[in-house]
Amino acid sequence: MPETEEISKGLEDVNIKWTRLTTIDGNKGILRYGGYSVEDIIASGAQDEEIQYLFLYGNLPTEQELRKYKETVQKGYKIPDFVINAIRQLPRESDAVAMQMAAVAAMAASETKFKWNKDTDRDVAAEMIGRMSAITVNVYRHIMNMPAELPKPSDSYAESFLNAAFGRKATKEEIDAMNTALILYTDHEVPASTTAGLVAVSTLSDMYSGITAALAALKGPLHGGAAEAAIAQFDEIKDPAMVEKWFNDNIINGKKRLMGFGHRVYKTYDPRAKIFKGIAEKLSSKKPEVHKVYEIATKLEDFGIKAFGSKGIYPNTDYFSGIVYMSIGFPLRNNIYTALFALSRVTGWQAHFIEYVEEQQRLIRPRAVYVGPAERKYVPIAERK
Amino acid sequence: MPETEEISKGLEDVNIKWTRLTTIDGNKGILRYGGYSVEDIIASGAQDEEIQYLFLYGNLPTEQELRKYKETVQKGYKIPDFVINAIRQLPRESDAVAMQMAAVAAMAASETKFKWNKDTDRDVAAEMIGRMSAITVNVYRHIMNMPAELPKPSDSYAESFLNAAFGRKATKEEIDAMNTALILYTDHEVPASTTAGLVAVSTLSDMYSGITAALAALKGPLHGGAAEAAIAQFDEIKDPAMVEKWFNDNIINGKKRLMGFGHRVYKTYDPRAKIFKGIAEKLSSKKPEVHKVYEIATKLEDFGIKAFGSKGIYPNTDYFSGIVYMSIGFPLRNNIYTALFALSRVTGWQAHFIEYVEEQQRLIRPRAVYVGPAERKYVPIAERK
Repeated sequence: MPETEEISKGLEDVNIKWTRLTTIDGNKGILRYGGYSVEDIIASGAQDEEIQYLFLYGNLPTEQELRKYKETVQKGYKIPDFVINAIRQLPRESDAVAMQMAAVAAMAASETKFKWNKDTDRDVAAEMIGRMSAITVNVYRHIMNMPAELPKPSDSYAESFLNAAFGRKATKEEIDAMNTALILYTDHEVPASTTAGLVAVSTLSDMYSGITAALAALKGPLHGGAAEAAIAQFDEIKDPAMVEKWFNDNIINGKKRLMGFGHRVYKTYDPRAKIFKGIAEKLSSKKPEVHKVYEIATKLEDFGIKAFGSKGIYPNTDYFSGIVYMSIGFPLRNNIYTALFALSRVTGWQAHFIEYVEEQQRLIRPRAVYVGPAERKYVPIAERK
Repeated sequence: MPETEEISKGLEDVNIKWTRLTTIDGNKGILRYGGYSVEDIIASGAQDEEIQYLFLYGNLPTEQELRKYKETVQKGYKIPDFVINAIRQLPRESDAVAMQMAAVAAMAASETKFKWNKDTDRDVAAEMIGRMSAITVNVYRHIMNMPAELPKPSDSYAESFLNAAFGRKATKEEIDAMNTALILYTDHEVPASTTAGLVAVSTLSDMYSGITAALAALKGPLHGGAAEAAIAQFDEIKDPAMVEKWFNDNIINGKKRLMGFGHRVYKTYDPRAKIFKGIAEKLSSKKPEVHKVYEIATKLEDFGIKAFGSKGIYPNTDYFSGIVYMSIGFPLRNNIYTALFALSRVTGWQAHFIEYVEEQQRLIRPRAVYVGPAERKYVPIAERK
């Protein structure tokens, strides 16, 4: 394998941009949105729309600003028929994130007049947050073999989404959990998905194409797919009594990776994982099958921390989030949990794109180190051996 | 505007990977595919499929290898109905590249069993090269209000594509020009599109999602959109006699950027531009309207080189390629020329993805420098001013 010193593998420690959005202290386990710690935000009972606004405008909204903002988001709930069809004409077994991708690509195809513009970028983004709700509702309903539906405006983004997805009035507990999950996945600086989208918009490609590129990266098992992978592993263990044996047979023996553990940036407990764990505990207590999964998860967590904690490997945000989605009522299939992750993250993606294009625009064009054959003379096909 | 020294703006001079595929000497104007110079490849009359094979397998094929390879590509000509529908259900005015994106996203959605695997990656890629032909045929035909059609196997990828797109037998001259254009756009190391795709597949997302991300970046006017932008500028000038006045009024006065000039890597004449220029001259000589565009282009080129050549700004590959596409018979609309660029580049994208995932896999996760507000205490909405 050719190796050279000069390659920035995985772009680790390369700074691709500056940001006013999110700051992570991976050693202390601190995550702040615009200076507000996520713990403080959740403990204060913030509504997801307030955090969306914070990402797009840099400050928390007043009541009047929030009202106006919600109207723009709600405009996005009415997606065109061809966006719904981009989803519904796909096989029902399709991957949920790729279905979102197909729908957002349809937006990119038709929005031929899009131009980056400081005066309109935030409205485009807010409306797209509404559209992403409608898209995700329809991805879910298509997978579940339910007819198409659009979210209806309400006072809460989480509520409008759940009501439309499930086709019934969501409970306050479900809405609160969804609201928290939406906030916790809003942004996380520049992971692969955000980076893929930034590369796309650095060519001045449109907002929707940026989101499509981000979804393409989020879909991977080393990124957004981790929440499903974590819960699939709990599912495989089946019984809390089996955790120790499974851990020794699979993880200690190196046969499998412990999913939902470890993070490129965090070297201690992910603050989001703590919050998700608390909700998972509370919500699952009323649902015996989900509670069993929660029990498996906490037992496995103990073994994991004992084995890997000293190496800085701890549960990350995806470790417990799947249990929260499952408690709310979403089934473990078709990568739906990753699609729910995307529903939150579309806010962070767009905020990063806007920051980049408006204030630090430069075409992203790295280099590769050539290690192939030296100059060769072309040999016509008849003379090749 | 916050600025810090530590940001690798545009990832300029950051090496994201090693490669055996393409090497560029930007100062000398040299471009080689696996050690073979593009001039040599074109002068030797290579067929595009030989070059596709070179990218996927590292060597030029023997006659037997080429025959087998073509069969795999041709398997891809039969795309599922839902991939065709992903295109045809979009508004006819849609952007051609975003239409490709919607179709490839549909592939990503349905290919849920895809796994990266040294034993199958190259077959997946070859078949996808065939699918990309079928997708692009249908994007073109939908824009032109023609019924769906699939390419039919023939001895030539270029010929199968043109026959299906136009619904008539393409001439030898058209096929040769298309074959050359396909070869010239096959790969160019790691521009934004390839980089966006690499970021996506670095999460072990699938091949089709990688291509979708690459298309999202290619769509931008600072990348693939340049060929259309270059020819749109010739179109605007209208008359060879107007070139000098237009140049002084728009470019010298700094009102507009000279499109199709300048490149992040080349500081001299792009070797591909020379070849495209030769074909454009020859092909356009039989078509008076296209020849007028060619005349405008060469006149404008002279003014451009006089003004900017000393700064290392020369025509790039996109300067003349649009005239070639126009001569072959493709109209200047809906970003079709960029979609034709993508039809070639899907080979280079996939070859880079394979090289990365099989031999240098690492999650791409850069960092951002936080320059936002310091820690703030959350203020409930009722207390905000």
